[in-house]
Amino acid sequence: MKIVLVRHGESKWNLANKFTGWTDVDLSKQGYQEAKEAGELLKKEGFSFDLAYTSYLKRATKTLNIILDIMDLHWIPVNKSWKLNERHYGALQGLNKAETAKKEGAEQVHIWRRSFDTPPPALDQADQRYPGNEAKYAELSEKQLPRAESLKMTIERVMPYWENEIVPQMKKGKKIIVAAHGNSLRALVKHLDGISDSDIPSLNIPTGKPLVYEFDQAMEVKAKYYLGDQEEIKKEMAKVKNQAKK
Amino acid sequence: MKIVLVRHGESKWNLANKFTGWTDVDLSKQGYQEAKEAGELLKKEGFSFDLAYTSYLKRATKTLNIILDIMDLHWIPVNKSWKLNERHYGALQGLNKAETAKKEGAEQVHIWRRSFDTPPPALDQADQRYPGNEAKYAELSEKQLPRAESLKMTIERVMPYWENEIVPQMKKGKKIIVAAHGNSLRALVKHLDGISDSDIPSLNIPTGKPLVYEFDQAMEVKAKYYLGDQEEIKKEMAKVKNQAKK
Repeated sequence: MKIVLVRHGESKWNLANKFTGWTDVDLSKQGYQEAKEAGELLKKEGFSFDLAYTSYLKRATKTLNIILDIMDLHWIPVNKSWKLNERHYGALQGLNKAETAKKEGAEQVHIWRRSFDTPPPALDQADQRYPGNEAKYAELSEKQLPRAESLKMTIERVMPYWENEIVPQMKKGKKIIVAAHGNSLRALVKHLDGISDSDIPSLNIPTGKPLVYEFDQAMEVKAKYYLGDQEEIKKEMAKVKNQAKK
Repeated sequence: MKIVLVRHGESKWNLANKFTGWTDVDLSKQGYQEAKEAGELLKKEGFSFDLAYTSYLKRATKTLNIILDIMDLHWIPVNKSWKLNERHYGALQGLNKAETAKKEGAEQVHIWRRSFDTPPPALDQADQRYPGNEAKYAELSEKQLPRAESLKMTIERVMPYWENEIVPQMKKGKKIIVAAHGNSLRALVKHLDGISDSDIPSLNIPTGKPLVYEFDQAMEVKAKYYLGDQEEIKKEMAKVKNQAKK
């Protein structure tokens, strides 16, 4: 049993160094290219899928569509869920990371970005950015609608989806790809690799690099590896870390 | 209650004037453009959707993806089914329509193209083109796997899907778009407009033009119209008719 996780390609706001969260920004030109390369790599390495999962955010759905198009797998079922969305970045959404560091102090921003359980400042419900004001999230109860999420809160909504939706399909033998986000994927990697609460915030998942997990019959992780050029992946993982310093 | 039906944009084989059927050819450049225009038109006219249906063939799934991207509806559920595929054109798949008319006679080709219940010559199961030889159709029983379909046979697989999958969702109030093919859409239009077996083969559905049906509470059709320039639509409908004459 195998599963492939892939973080969406670079978005326009990764490029602009802004806090994105649930803001539904498109891929950058580079992001489209990364998605294409991920698809080509998976195809070259002989991967195939029966089932795909993604979030409600276009940088992930488009990354997935591009990968599936290249692999000639446009016809497989795709399950979309807000539970795989990026961490909600609250009132920081739309702000520049470096400018916010200048204004609020690098340490405060570091806490918001890298603390396990401190959420960023919460959105007011009247704020345009509050997901309760978007048709897309009409199905969510007020309790489910985030005003800001810590990594811990993100994990708490991702993991039930993993356990109840994705794992049962893996157990049925389905070959699965998940196209999601830095923090929703951190939730899965934390669980699969047994990473501690204090270590997980500093784990960086590069954009557009297929991450493969192999399992034994007991659903224990047997092997884990990124596809592609290993040196490049190391560089990408370091780059994510340094965003607030730009 | 409303539903929108849209035939995929022009494919590379529409352009090459070949019998396509279940051959999974991509959209032409013009086809991408048509899909884009369909999305822009739907957006301009204030349409929105909760749910989408399409076939297993990329000219339809891509048309749908392009429309949903433009409408910012990339996040809605998309159900894909082989039951919405184009009519299977049997051993004619891949042959040029005009050349086949020269070789087999215009009358014979006219029968294959426009008869209600005469299927084209059947594929041998050893033929590469037989869907039983594709991973994509692994879920189908031998009985379900077509070797060639008449329009009648196509209708017989489309209509149960309509009745059992699509209509119940409409009754729940879902706003639906279906991106499919000339003949799978003929099945729906025949049913909705009460067109006879002898008249339906000559009904032409233009590519990329959103066709709207409005229903009353009893699911009776109240109104039917194409969105867009009505003169252009008439021209497109005539063009489809004349393909074997090129």
